[in-house]
Amino acid sequence: MGFEEMWRDLAPVGRSAASGGYFRQPWASAESELRAWFAQECAARGLTVETDGIGNQVAWWSPDSATGKGVLTGSHLDSVLDGGAYDGPLGVVSALAAVDTMRGRGFEPSRPIGIGVFVEEEGSRFGRACLGSRLVTGATTWDEARELRDRDGVFLADAVEVAGLDPSTGLLSLEHVGTFVELHVEQGRDLFDRDVAVGLASEIWPHGRWRFDFAGQANHAGTTRMEDRRDPMLTYAMTALAANKQARLAGQRATFGRISVEPNGTNAVPSLVTAWLDARASSDDALAEMVDAVGRQAQDRAGRDGTALTVTAESVSGSVAFDPDLAARLAGLGDWPVIATQAGHDAGILADAGIPTAMVFVRNPTGVSHSPDEHAETADCLTGVEALADVLEELAR
Amino acid sequence: MGFEEMWRDLAPVGRSAASGGYFRQPWASAESELRAWFAQECAARGLTVETDGIGNQVAWWSPDSATGKGVLTGSHLDSVLDGGAYDGPLGVVSALAAVDTMRGRGFEPSRPIGIGVFVEEEGSRFGRACLGSRLVTGATTWDEARELRDRDGVFLADAVEVAGLDPSTGLLSLEHVGTFVELHVEQGRDLFDRDVAVGLASEIWPHGRWRFDFAGQANHAGTTRMEDRRDPMLTYAMTALAANKQARLAGQRATFGRISVEPNGTNAVPSLVTAWLDARASSDDALAEMVDAVGRQAQDRAGRDGTALTVTAESVSGSVAFDPDLAARLAGLGDWPVIATQAGHDAGILADAGIPTAMVFVRNPTGVSHSPDEHAETADCLTGVEALADVLEELAR
Repeated sequence: MGFEEMWRDLAPVGRSAASGGYFRQPWASAESELRAWFAQECAARGLTVETDGIGNQVAWWSPDSATGKGVLTGSHLDSVLDGGAYDGPLGVVSALAAVDTMRGRGFEPSRPIGIGVFVEEEGSRFGRACLGSRLVTGATTWDEARELRDRDGVFLADAVEVAGLDPSTGLLSLEHVGTFVELHVEQGRDLFDRDVAVGLASEIWPHGRWRFDFAGQANHAGTTRMEDRRDPMLTYAMTALAANKQARLAGQRATFGRISVEPNGTNAVPSLVTAWLDARASSDDALAEMVDAVGRQAQDRAGRDGTALTVTAESVSGSVAFDPDLAARLAGLGDWPVIATQAGHDAGILADAGIPTAMVFVRNPTGVSHSPDEHAETADCLTGVEALADVLEELAR
Repeated sequence: MGFEEMWRDLAPVGRSAASGGYFRQPWASAESELRAWFAQECAARGLTVETDGIGNQVAWWSPDSATGKGVLTGSHLDSVLDGGAYDGPLGVVSALAAVDTMRGRGFEPSRPIGIGVFVEEEGSRFGRACLGSRLVTGATTWDEARELRDRDGVFLADAVEVAGLDPSTGLLSLEHVGTFVELHVEQGRDLFDRDVAVGLASEIWPHGRWRFDFAGQANHAGTTRMEDRRDPMLTYAMTALAANKQARLAGQRATFGRISVEPNGTNAVPSLVTAWLDARASSDDALAEMVDAVGRQAQDRAGRDGTALTVTAESVSGSVAFDPDLAARLAGLGDWPVIATQAGHDAGILADAGIPTAMVFVRNPTGVSHSPDEHAETADCLTGVEALADVLEELAR
């Protein structure tokens, strides 16, 4: 099947009729369907899929002409909660289509070409972004990860088992991977502003997630005088505004998009507000400085509100520079621009593990991502497939 | 059983081991247990409980000496989410104990004395406070109420049926109720400041709940520049702070204690933030003015944030003045102060329906309520039982 047919096949899987967005959380039903779909598409191309003990998948095109370390491409199939169609799946579908394109051109690879799918890239269920690739590279150990819990309190180890997987059977080996290339929809508007359909990645900004626990005292919302309250919602509200202002002034990014309130009743002052700060900056120092500044302002306000604040770093990733020589060499194939991204990717995890890695971005006309409105034009997606085929031929010739 | 034994019996029902607070939501298991407990306590006193089609209960002590319209007392057994032990149950347990006290004194009522328990007083499940008493007085109709949904989308009509009740069997009749008296733990510190254990209510402040829907655009928390966002969390945060300030300056009450965020993911700018404003003021005009002022500031900010705000009044109750002659007459029994409350009560609904109504408050040493920390000293509770018995004797002699 061609790119457009594959894209149509995927469209209904895990889609919310209400919002039009996707709920493709790992180790649940929509994702099982996606995993089966991927295996079937590989089989239709004569490729055999290996699925590892936590659900990472890889299929190798390794004809007799191919020897030595391989070139791995691919991305992920999971989504954020109520996410878009492109973030992840575009890289997987384009990889399958690029194999078709190379074969149509009569290309004979002298290195194996693999298509990989990593699980829980978004961290939407267990809160750890790029969990599949982190486990494969050893950046996170299974002994640590198995204790992670989702929002319903389910342990990762149990979720994986319920999905019919067995981590003791081992994880994907990257031993034979010489290069990794991930195609991804752009999540900003750099390519749109430059009026080009395709670009390459220079670096990933340092970024992380911090949990802010604001503890106060539950009380009656009607009878408690304003001056007698210890209301953690106020400390949170000021912190959310402070984070936004801090990021805006510094040209960085800071977001409070997730919150949990106890008891979350209309007529009760909350006892506890927990909120997660997603922060990203152009350097490790700038990131630390911004998060510190937000934390300081929050602590000051907590003092005035009579509440108590604890800040916990849940995951922090330093900046990732993709191999500059590789990027320059590949950019030359199409006169493509080389741009930075503020989003984390499995490509960043593999690059950190010492594997020469590149990313191909496809233009996003609005820059909107992690949203049902995320979009890329079909013509740009097809240009992306051609570009990926060119890149893979360059690396595997 | 005496007051203290009954209190001990109730202590574990619906109690969270984690917080020590109560989760006694209507038409669920803890509440069924409470309903059965109440029926058993009445039976032990030779009183027969009627349970109406939605779960309101009443038991009449109506010896041969009693004729004419009766005196109803009682309160509710449900709690807010993670609430305290006293709000509601103190009035029910004190009513049962007051019957014992009157009998112990050899009192022969010349009017029937009833003990009532109203369902969903807190509105913690279906968002409508005093739902049981509203339905009984006709302030809310069943045709309207049956369509209410809880947080899981369950219709009230279905929840009631699952609890084994049948609204078509009819609701409690107030036809034979001449006076209503509700004993309640105080939810402020007026009695503590005045150094007395018991007081009577003069009025209930006007109060209500407004739903604020802040709509923005979901987007990637990393790649979307701060200036390209339409982030409804910011509009909400500013609104929560504005509501607090408005109430503080005016000596009124305004609280955002409940929030729901879509998609509520760490790495996504939210598409929608819904939050509920609980507001109370010393006059209807002051309440309208405060809510308008908060709404105006929120709309201004929405304009700057590129978000859209809709405000919906979910329930608004005007001020309730309890029968002043009745309050003065009863206050004379014990030289008790007559004070206002900012909390809604079933007593307010019955007073609004034209039934002469009074409230007896029992001292709360911290003023804390709607919280696991809610407390009253046992000595004060026992003084409350004596006071309630005095009041009932005065009204039923």
